[in-house]
This record gives sequence, structure tokens and C-alpha cells, in this order.
Amino acid sequence: MPASPIRKLVPYATAAKKAGKKVIHLNIGQPDIETPKVVRDAVKNFEYKVLSYLNSEGSESYRTKLTEYYKSVGVDVNASEIMVTTGGSEALFFGMFSCLDAGDEVIIPEPFYANYNGFATSGNIKIVPITSSIENGFALPPMEDFEKKIGPKTKAILICNPNNPTGYLYSKEELETLKAIVLKHDLFIFVDEVYREFVYDGKKHTSILSLEGIENHAIVIDSISKRYSACGARLGALVTKNKEVVQTAMKFAQARLSPPTYSEVAAEAALDTPQSYFDEVIHEYIERRNMMVEGLNKIEGVTCPNPGGAFYAMVKLPIDDSDLFCQWMLYEFEHKVSTVMMAPATGFYATPGLGKQEVRIAYVLKKEELQEAIECLAVALKQYK
Amino acid sequence: MPASPIRKLVPYATAAKKAGKKVIHLNIGQPDIETPKVVRDAVKNFEYKVLSYLNSEGSESYRTKLTEYYKSVGVDVNASEIMVTTGGSEALFFGMFSCLDAGDEVIIPEPFYANYNGFATSGNIKIVPITSSIENGFALPPMEDFEKKIGPKTKAILICNPNNPTGYLYSKEELETLKAIVLKHDLFIFVDEVYREFVYDGKKHTSILSLEGIENHAIVIDSISKRYSACGARLGALVTKNKEVVQTAMKFAQARLSPPTYSEVAAEAALDTPQSYFDEVIHEYIERRNMMVEGLNKIEGVTCPNPGGAFYAMVKLPIDDSDLFCQWMLYEFEHKVSTVMMAPATGFYATPGLGKQEVRIAYVLKKEELQEAIECLAVALKQYK
Repeated sequence: MPASPIRKLVPYATAAKKAGKKVIHLNIGQPDIETPKVVRDAVKNFEYKVLSYLNSEGSESYRTKLTEYYKSVGVDVNASEIMVTTGGSEALFFGMFSCLDAGDEVIIPEPFYANYNGFATSGNIKIVPITSSIENGFALPPMEDFEKKIGPKTKAILICNPNNPTGYLYSKEELETLKAIVLKHDLFIFVDEVYREFVYDGKKHTSILSLEGIENHAIVIDSISKRYSACGARLGALVTKNKEVVQTAMKFAQARLSPPTYSEVAAEAALDTPQSYFDEVIHEYIERRNMMVEGLNKIEGVTCPNPGGAFYAMVKLPIDDSDLFCQWMLYEFEHKVSTVMMAPATGFYATPGLGKQEVRIAYVLKKEELQEAIECLAVALKQYK
Repeated sequence: MPASPIRKLVPYATAAKKAGKKVIHLNIGQPDIETPKVVRDAVKNFEYKVLSYLNSEGSESYRTKLTEYYKSVGVDVNASEIMVTTGGSEALFFGMFSCLDAGDEVIIPEPFYANYNGFATSGNIKIVPITSSIENGFALPPMEDFEKKIGPKTKAILICNPNNPTGYLYSKEELETLKAIVLKHDLFIFVDEVYREFVYDGKKHTSILSLEGIENHAIVIDSISKRYSACGARLGALVTKNKEVVQTAMKFAQARLSPPTYSEVAAEAALDTPQSYFDEVIHEYIERRNMMVEGLNKIEGVTCPNPGGAFYAMVKLPIDDSDLFCQWMLYEFEHKVSTVMMAPATGFYATPGLGKQEVRIAYVLKKEELQEAIECLAVALKQYK
């Protein structure tokens, strides 16, 4: 399994900090947004004598309460169609291992979240990438591109909506295209919807589970990490109406006994988070995004599409090798004692050679810091050859 | 993956409860012992604004504090040789996936913890059982039995010490035997030591990591679940001095991002649990075990070895089919409106046909309940055919 491209930068970041530089981290998806008070209070007030296992599939009460949440986002599922997992990561692991065998193939539009590689490698599952392009903001590649890649070993398509790393929000029409492909070739479709709430400009997120006729094919990967800024809880869910997939996933769930109890307490309380919390968070992210996108596009030679969701953007820079440039920014460059750490996009592409002119940024910092980062990057690009 | 034999009994237990019977659960490993107050308080007092990810390997502070704990049990490791995991389950998963490829074989003395099957199946790893016998209390089978099973695909041996399901405590001499085999054939040895603290009658637990010369071969699976009666925390550790194994396991750890934060807070606090807590717990378990073992051996035709550790015992009954007998106890039998749920031993053996006269019991209930269970079983055995 390859080390992630961000991990490879860590020694350079450490050296930069040792040298006294301030490193502005645009490389990580750890939001600085406060976890809702209702979540923090619930864990504080959780009373028990014995910290017991939960049911392997999560507690009945939490799953029942989750059905109300899913109804509110247009998804009609019952509690037995929800399995509580240790983070979205485990949901993806259970889903992939339940639906694919060693040697099977999953098609993923690239660039994609680098950790998908880890799960695929664990199961000897082959990722077949289909390249999406910064020119149209990383929209879904045309149906023909998928058709070309589908073979006898293709078992599934995986997308992330809204997308990490591109921030692209897939439209209902694009999901209908995917549905047509999935039904025609009898495939599974995994949709990582952990950024569901983070959609901007009055757009609306469509869950794959809200489409009709795809019930037996669709598997949603979910997590409370980003929704409630509770990454450390490691609490997610696998949601599917396919009973066979639930049954198989249960065997994996039973082998690891149960999801973490404290975290489920937090997650159940999180469902009572007031709408005002989300309104504030979304407002903050729109301002951050607008500032980043405007600021970046003003730099000569830089292109940054305006992402419709999540809190990431892919940025095209006037450089030849994003890995070397990101290293250089940390190791050799500084501006007013500061520098910026970004994720080279090469790690988000499976096709060798792609992403060399792109970086991923996460706008999870305060606006003043983002402003500082933009200035820093502008100066750096002038200095860099 | 086969469903566990206990799961298969669940519908019968549900029916028994619906019929108004009291079901005494000797089938589960969920202790009734209180989680230490220091653990419960730590989570209550945990202050944070943003519930962030931990490092993938666990926080530096917890791992450093863990090195002191390991020193106290005779194991000299540094923080970089400890990886914090989501339960012992994940430690075993990381360990197996890091050391074995699909098609490789791991030798395990049977009867063994049924969930080992789940992890092996996920990785297409083959479990090769070596049968241990109730006649000598499930001592380590002789070296020749191992030698016979070792082939070109054998990569590892796995034991649980003290053992679930047998309660057997492997002696230092037996571990030295395993060390000789492991070194001779260049194998890994996984030791699940999650019951380390539960040893009785003045015996001493020897960690595999305390043996000299086996550093590059030994991997310990650990967990706070049983030690501090904190099963719901899902917090464990993989411990090994083999740097390559740590590096490979890190890739799996990074793919799932981090262990759960609340649980690590609980685990770090747990290290301050006073010795008096353990003294009381061990005292309680010795009393329970003595009552169970004595009471069971008094029943005609019943044999129960005296286990040196953990809180399980394998019991030989004058029956032909433990699956059917356990079903019958739940479905058809009652004594003073009560019955007993036990785990048929067939699920702990990989060799078909073994364990049909045995059941596993867990003595994790109050003594009055255990006494009631013994009486119930005695009556049941008289009635059964």
C-alpha cells in the first residue's frame, strides 16, 4: 500500500516548524468548527456503571432516531437498513468487503479520496479510475467513459458526493446517469455522502437512496465526523435497502463486536443539533470558499473552480510537479515567517502522471489565516522558478 | 463466513424470554464488574471545543504512559512499538493483514475464540487448527503436533493467553516451546493477551514479549475491554518490536484515520486505576470460578477443568450434541421459571465434529445467579433424555 502524499510531506512540515516558520495547514480535513454543545453535554452527562458493548449493528434507539434524520434529507429507510459503524471508514470497509471479492474491480472517478486505496488494497480489490477534469469543475465523466471501463470483473462504482477532494456536487441528473449504468450492468453503487450538509449557493444535495428503482444496488457511506465536527468520535453508518448486503456486513460487524459506546451517545445527541448551528457553519464555509476561490483565481496562472459543496477545492497552479512544489514551499520558502502546506494532487489520481499541476486545499481555517495563505502562495509562485 | 454458534441461539433465547422464562446468560463475555470511577470521571471531565482526530497510531501521551504499564508486567517496549487500535479486534485485523497474505495459513490451538474466523475470512487467510484436550485442561499441544501442520504456507501461530474459551493459562515453559517452533520455522506469533490481569491461585502471566530472542516474531494483541470492564470503549493496542510490522500496520491505521478520541481519554485515565480495584475483581472472580467448578463437577457425568485465568470454562456434559442441548435448554426446559444460556463448544472448534459434548460458560455474573445456573443445569441434565 502506498503512503499517502500528505504523509510524505510531514517530515518537511516538521522541519519547517523547527526552523521557526508558521505553517498554515490547508492540507487537512479537520474542521476548526466547534462540536455542538448538545454533543459535548451528552457525553458529560452519560451515566453508567459498566461500559458495555453495544449491539454490533448499533443500538436500536440510535438507529430509530436516525431514520427520522434520513427522512429529513429525502431518504426513506427503516432501522434495520442502517448499520452503525466505527466511522465512515468502517462503513466503506464493510461495504466493499461485503459486495466485492478479491480480484473484483470498482470504478471511481479520479481524483478521489486517497484512503479509498487503503480499503481496496486490504481486499485485493482493483480500483479502475475514470478521469474527471478541472476544466468543467470535475463534473461526472460521460456515460461512454464508464461503459469503456466496465468488464466482467467490474462489481461497483464509487463516488463521493459532495466530493473530496474536488468539492464537486453531483446533480440529480448525474446520479440518474449513474443509476442507468448501474442498472444496465447490474453493479453496486457506493456513495460516500459524509459531506451531505455542506452544499452552497442554494443548491440541494440528492442522496443516491432517494432515487427510485436503485434500492438493491445503492449503498450509502455516512459519518458524523464532518456534519457535527466530531471527527474524533469515529462514528458512521452503512445504509442500504439491500438485505443481503446488510446480512453480510453484519458478519463483519459481529467480528469486531460493536461500535464505540461513548461515540454513539455523542451521535444520538447530535441529532438534536439545532438548525441554527448548521446555518452558521454553512454561512462561514461559503464566506471562506468565496474568499479562497476569488483570491486564488486572481493569482496569475492559477485556476480554481468554484466548488458546490464540501470544504475542499482543487487548484491548478503554474508548476510542473506538485509534490516538489509542496515540498519546496515547506522546506525552502517563507514569506513573513510563514508558509503553506497543501496536498499535492498526484495522490488523488490513480493514473500515473496526473495531478502534477494541481493541489488540494481544505478551507477549514479562519478567514484571516486563509487570506494569509493566499498571499503566501502568490509570493511563492513568483519566486518558484 | 459462518454465523457464530451463539448468534444461532439468539432466536431461542428471545422465544424463552417471551414465554416468561428468566434466562441466565452464561454465554457472554460482558463482565458485570463496574468500570473504574477514574475512567468514568475522565470522560465526564474531558474538555474540548472540537472533537478532533487523534494520530492514527494513538496519542503520544497515551502511548508513553502505556510503556510504564507494560514495564509493570515485564514488557520493555517504547511508545513507537505500540499502536493504539479500535479494540483488540482491530489490533488482530491489522496484525493479520500486515503479516499474512491471502492464501497464507495461521495455526491456532482449538478450541479458539470464534471471532478469529471472521478476521481470517476477511483476508482469505486459512486457519489450521491443532486440537487441545479437555483431559489435560487444554494445555498446549505437543511440539510434534505443530511440526506436523507447518507447511510452506504457514506464516504464523496465534494463541490467546489466558485463553478464551478454555480459561487455560499458558506457562512460561509452554511459551518457550512456542518460541522454539517460531524461531525454527521463521513464523510470526500473535498472542491475544487481553485477559492478562485475570490469573488466579498465585500464578503469574508471562507475556510473549518478555521472552528474549523472539522480538522480531512476536505481536501482542491487547485491549482495555476486560481489564477495566470497558468493553464499549473499543480501545486496544497492537504491540510489537518488529519495525516492519509497525510500518505496515500504520498504513491500515492511516486508512481508518484514528482510534476513537473519547475512548482513548478513558483508556489513558484507566492507567491510574488503583491496585485495590484489581484485587477486588480478582478476588470476586476466584470465588465465582471456585463455585462454578465445584458445583459443575458435582453434577453426574459433568467434567469442568479448573481454569487458571480469564473468566471462561469449557465444560464436558453427558450429551451428544451441544447445539441441540443448548437450544433445548432455552426452548423446552425450565426450572423454577428459569433456564440457562450457554455457548455450544462446536463453534470454538474448526475441526468438524469436535465440541459436541462441550459448552463454554462465562462466570461474569453474581454468585447467586451462578448458583441458580448450576442447579438449573443439574435438573436439565436429568430431564434431557
